Amino acid sequence: MIYLTGFHAIEERIKSGRPCGPLLVAKPGPRAHSLSILANEKKIHTERVGTADLDHLAPLHRGIALAVDEGGFGAETSLDEFLEGFENNGKKNDALVIILDEITDPHNYGAILRSCDQFGVDLVLSRHRRIAKHAETVAKTSAGASAWVPQAETANLPRAAEELKKAGFWIYGADMEGDCLYSRDLRGKTAIILGGEGSGISRLLRESCDAMIAIPSLGRIDSLNVSVAAGVLFYEVMRQRKIE
Amino acid sequence: MIYLTGFHAIEERIKSGRPCGPLLVAKPGPRAHSLSILANEKKIHTERVGTADLDHLAPLHRGIALAVDEGGFGAETSLDEFLEGFENNGKKNDALVIILDEITDPHNYGAILRSCDQFGVDLVLSRHRRIAKHAETVAKTSAGASAWVPQAETANLPRAAEELKKAGFWIYGADMEGDCLYSRDLRGKTAIILGGEGSGISRLLRESCDAMIAIPSLGRIDSLNVSVAAGVLFYEVMRQRKIE
Repeated sequence: MIYLTGFHAIEERIKSGRPCGPLLVAKPGPRAHSLSILANEKKIHTERVGTADLDHLAPLHRGIALAVDEGGFGAETSLDEFLEGFENNGKKNDALVIILDEITDPHNYGAILRSCDQFGVDLVLSRHRRIAKHAETVAKTSAGASAWVPQAETANLPRAAEELKKAGFWIYGADMEGDCLYSRDLRGKTAIILGGEGSGISRLLRESCDAMIAIPSLGRIDSLNVSVAAGVLFYEVMRQRKIE
Repeated sequence: MIYLTGFHAIEERIKSGRPCGPLLVAKPGPRAHSLSILANEKKIHTERVGTADLDHLAPLHRGIALAVDEGGFGAETSLDEFLEGFENNGKKNDALVIILDEITDPHNYGAILRSCDQFGVDLVLSRHRRIAKHAETVAKTSAGASAWVPQAETANLPRAAEELKKAGFWIYGADMEGDCLYSRDLRGKTAIILGGEGSGISRLLRESCDAMIAIPSLGRIDSLNVSVAAGVLFYEVMRQRKIE
């Protein structure tokens, strides 16, 4: 059991309809009040608790916390499940899958999930959930999006990339040596691999790529923060698909 | 006097050629060694110090620190100076100016400067330097870019916006109610105003805008982290100008 404490994260988790609760309120106030009303609508129990109790459960709280199990990673799925649902409804000819290779910083992971929400990413695939220990940071940084952006983990990302290829996906690796992002046609079933800030994409996974793509740079550093780079990549995919 | 401690920030500050030093080394190692060589080339003095001394001067150090004055905000200029230089060389018909309204979080400010470097932003204009107290955080988060991205401050942003207009700039405000970003022609002299994450752009400054622009959203939250939003906006301007 972990405790979400951001107003926004709590609100979005309750709205997502996924199991959670109780809502623990130590300090009454307008935001706590509106969250209790929302919780009540969704049949989630609200409890008045002492500030000291909440200090103990969730040291960073601001007077309210929502208990969630599974570390707050709500939208867990698997690649198989995703591909199956996908073949069955047959409509997602422009699915966008993101593969995160060695991105383990919870702030970066959360910020990427927030952008995934905005740009309609269909699945986030990562190697492991070292990050799950930091579920609260992820939930906060993602502004709640960690509760519903579909996420799957796998021990073997290169194999997952091969499965995606078999399902008709083009696999792109983000790398500053790659082709200019907007010179590439990124419509259709697309998977984009993002590597760690220092390390980049691991060798084996790099071999799975159909092509490498880069965000052009005019700068002296030639590197973006990984969550900014992710946002730009997702934006460009969306722009090419002309969804307004 | 403040102390930069990130290897990258130190390296970029030394390379920028702007006054700094001495370089304080408490733990020798390959990175400290290469930074000392670089410092030596630039006639910057290196001093061996004890770890305890460095703990006192720069609590977050990893064995090395570079002394800088002016809070590490190197590329300080003023709007007048910028516009003058600009008229004199006459070539920047596609200048890009960013106006930051109430973005005071040093991490966000630093991340935005890093993106400004990558996408060739010509000037960052902000109201005040509350942020200057956090120069080290800014330098680190910007991966060193705070040392050279041109930055100016002014007490009166609406007046600065009017001056930019007189100089032929189009002023855009970033706002989720605005026109779709890529439906707008963002070539030519352009200024983009970014507001705080919660507060948005202040009313007076909003009135200075020729138009509002939005990054389209497919999501349930409809808001990006401000530094991600900045990166996407700068990217789109660069893409339209087709600089590779």
